[in-house]
Amino acid sequence: MPITTRAEDYSKWYQSIVDQAGLAENSAVRGCMVIKPTGYALWEKMRDALDRMFKETGHVNAYFPLFIPKSFLAKEEQMAEGFAKECAVVTHYRLKAIPGQGVAVDPDAKLEEELIVRPTSETIIWNTYKSWIQSYRDLPLLINQWANVVRWEMRTRLFLRTAEFLWQEGHTAHATQAEAEAETRQMLEVYRKFAEDYMAMPVMTGPKSEGQKFPGAIYTLCIEAMMQDGKALQAGTSHFLGQNFAKAFDVQFQSETGSREYAWATSWGVSTRLIGGLIMTHSDDKGLVIPPRIAPLHVVIVPIYRKDEEKASVYAACHQLAASIREYPRMPWLSYEAISVKVDDREQYQPGYKFNDWELKGVPIRIELGPKDLEKSACVIARRDVPGKEGKQFGIPLSGAAEVIAKLLPEIQQSLFDRAKAFRDSHLRTANSYDEFKELIEQPGFIWAHWDGTAETETKIQEETKATIRCIPFDRPDEPGVCMISGKPSAGRVIFARSY
Amino acid sequence: MPITTRAEDYSKWYQSIVDQAGLAENSAVRGCMVIKPTGYALWEKMRDALDRMFKETGHVNAYFPLFIPKSFLAKEEQMAEGFAKECAVVTHYRLKAIPGQGVAVDPDAKLEEELIVRPTSETIIWNTYKSWIQSYRDLPLLINQWANVVRWEMRTRLFLRTAEFLWQEGHTAHATQAEAEAETRQMLEVYRKFAEDYMAMPVMTGPKSEGQKFPGAIYTLCIEAMMQDGKALQAGTSHFLGQNFAKAFDVQFQSETGSREYAWATSWGVSTRLIGGLIMTHSDDKGLVIPPRIAPLHVVIVPIYRKDEEKASVYAACHQLAASIREYPRMPWLSYEAISVKVDDREQYQPGYKFNDWELKGVPIRIELGPKDLEKSACVIARRDVPGKEGKQFGIPLSGAAEVIAKLLPEIQQSLFDRAKAFRDSHLRTANSYDEFKELIEQPGFIWAHWDGTAETETKIQEETKATIRCIPFDRPDEPGVCMISGKPSAGRVIFARSY
Repeated sequence: MPITTRAEDYSKWYQSIVDQAGLAENSAVRGCMVIKPTGYALWEKMRDALDRMFKETGHVNAYFPLFIPKSFLAKEEQMAEGFAKECAVVTHYRLKAIPGQGVAVDPDAKLEEELIVRPTSETIIWNTYKSWIQSYRDLPLLINQWANVVRWEMRTRLFLRTAEFLWQEGHTAHATQAEAEAETRQMLEVYRKFAEDYMAMPVMTGPKSEGQKFPGAIYTLCIEAMMQDGKALQAGTSHFLGQNFAKAFDVQFQSETGSREYAWATSWGVSTRLIGGLIMTHSDDKGLVIPPRIAPLHVVIVPIYRKDEEKASVYAACHQLAASIREYPRMPWLSYEAISVKVDDREQYQPGYKFNDWELKGVPIRIELGPKDLEKSACVIARRDVPGKEGKQFGIPLSGAAEVIAKLLPEIQQSLFDRAKAFRDSHLRTANSYDEFKELIEQPGFIWAHWDGTAETETKIQEETKATIRCIPFDRPDEPGVCMISGKPSAGRVIFARSY
Repeated sequence: MPITTRAEDYSKWYQSIVDQAGLAENSAVRGCMVIKPTGYALWEKMRDALDRMFKETGHVNAYFPLFIPKSFLAKEEQMAEGFAKECAVVTHYRLKAIPGQGVAVDPDAKLEEELIVRPTSETIIWNTYKSWIQSYRDLPLLINQWANVVRWEMRTRLFLRTAEFLWQEGHTAHATQAEAEAETRQMLEVYRKFAEDYMAMPVMTGPKSEGQKFPGAIYTLCIEAMMQDGKALQAGTSHFLGQNFAKAFDVQFQSETGSREYAWATSWGVSTRLIGGLIMTHSDDKGLVIPPRIAPLHVVIVPIYRKDEEKASVYAACHQLAASIREYPRMPWLSYEAISVKVDDREQYQPGYKFNDWELKGVPIRIELGPKDLEKSACVIARRDVPGKEGKQFGIPLSGAAEVIAKLLPEIQQSLFDRAKAFRDSHLRTANSYDEFKELIEQPGFIWAHWDGTAETETKIQEETKATIRCIPFDRPDEPGVCMISGKPSAGRVIFARSY
């Protein structure tokens, strides 16, 4: 089935990439996805890279319960308003078999207090921290959890918005406000590095507006990316929670000076939504494009032969080449993992079919090796990020191919980032009046505009244009002005966009 | 707090190890545990080793929904009877905030069909496989999932039996019965290797009796381990499911000859329960004992100094030693990971306290380094598996310490296995009559006894002695006889024991 092109219908293009590259599909349970092996392998690479970065910054993993007692969600006032809405609620704990009729919920097995499937774990974790934190010596507590969470979304879209999704949630406790704020900022920087250095996805960093922050946070920092259709994707958030959760769950500790104090908190998370962001940053009308550092497979070798007598020697050369690539010295850049390579030995398919298939699946490098190449002890190397003849290098000696590939992988990574950044930067516009803003918002891209800092103005803009404030970038120009709506003073422009 | 000794109360000893080594604790949600960082680090090591073994045998990971429509559990008759009992049932999808009173379940948000939190995923997975399997070319499908599952257990115990636990579940589909049976056997062998080579926990392998098999399986193979109190722990199971699930979910494929056939299935799983088995196989009255191959930390270095002027040189030597251990060439035996080492630089504690603390936490090797050692450019190496003076090596030159450790780690691993195996083998007894059986079952250990193969006899024995058939070992002696209860023929003895 051909892929719908981006120009035809961006949304259908996205769906066809997810579908045809075999990343995920809808399940029998409304809003819940099945992450297929190809999609899950990508998530594993992303998870492992993030996990290493978390550990390098002193964090450890733990695991907290899936269920949260209903009453916990009411303890933190903002949580109750924000998250305690669309949730999966467990009310019973037993089924009974009815012979010939299937199974029914046992009405006698009703829970005294309903349990909520976690939409996020601040409450259950801070309830646990109460017994872990007694003294300043117990701090900081730097814990992360890899888990599934559930939010009963009505309109879902694979990876971008699903009822159940996978994520990590960091929950840290600190003795001082300054330390917690430094952690909030540090983890945002970890996310920025991951997004830019691993996913090759440029992001803006800075706080959200009050209207867009996490309920219960004092403030929320975010990484915000631009997709190829010019819409924004919130790709990760890091929250400074102040003492809200410590007060709600009475987590106090004895300070160095002997006083009793409430602990300071942060939380931060990214999810399988990143896979959606990855697709919409790099992929094209031929299929998925995966940056080398998070590619489960780096190189595919396609044997080419016409006659049966050519087959054995071509296959032997392909496998020898694969071995030389696998054995190439391990690079810090690939976290000391071997370059991953596969010989496509499917006999039922022609080389042309295979080329398309691996382009669809986004493998960064394809090697073509046939009898004519073999005569010259050479091969052809094709880059996924530059389709067609321009992306091909001919006559690469087999003996030097591994080294060429080892150098080409970082080059592809950089080129993907540069291209995405050039796209983003060329789609940043400036509006100096609301009329101009309303005109520009119909074009793909982000808009820099002045805003008076009030929720009323933000709401009005959202209602009238469907655009929200995505980020108040740390590095915004120092340019005071007046709000395009109210005419009141503005300390500097903020980023508006329509978003996923 | 001192650890309860095993002789005093084995069950309290277990609880105090879990508690004081900081592995896990009960949560605010009945039956659900919090896996603490130390316990989770152990699970990560076990998970990573298993995951590598699954991938080496051609399996890939995927992720399926947490929820299962209630009707699915009724599709496979045996499943309905076996698992569709004590389950968490989601009936509603929304809460509403009641100002000043917390939150309540919104009665208007009732699901049309209740959802069950997965107790195991055969049904939702085989419902998905229906669209993935069309032709023999789509087979075999070799998929594994790492996930949380929930079974509403009434009496729970940390790691051994909890309402929510973490596990992996493999679900494979094959074109032929022979291939599916070979897979069932292969995965049991993966589990045996993991248990014996990584956990140093000897296991018996073989089928379960009909009464003990997984509901819905044609037969269940198991690895069965003996704990230090002589009780049995089912440590992993591999099920041959025949065509039961393919028929329940109508998963048919076109065979090579063009006929329509139902696919053949296996499933196999191990869980966080293994951590309980690890504790009860190796640990002692001083605390946890972790086999090196799954130890998150291999070596701890404790600096010893009395005077402040000694401190700087002792610390410098400790850190230099740590670096030399970390940089020791990576070994296949440790999956090419560096030897993990930590200098215990906590200034508020004395060395004696630290020795006890690391013994409690089960770190395989402790190095002691003080001014007198430093004079001789040497250190003391102590083995966790041999407490006291016998486990210590004195005067090990600092320059050769890394190599000594690299050799000592596999030695400790082997020694732990040998000791556990010797214990197990010395607690295998043979009963030739039911009277003898009833006497022996009051002593710790497993019993070889003849059984007529019927469910009635097995039930009678269980009701009267609380012992069950744990395993019909593949390698049982070829020794026909007569059932100790009914006097009917028996093809050979089977293993009975009381179990966790």
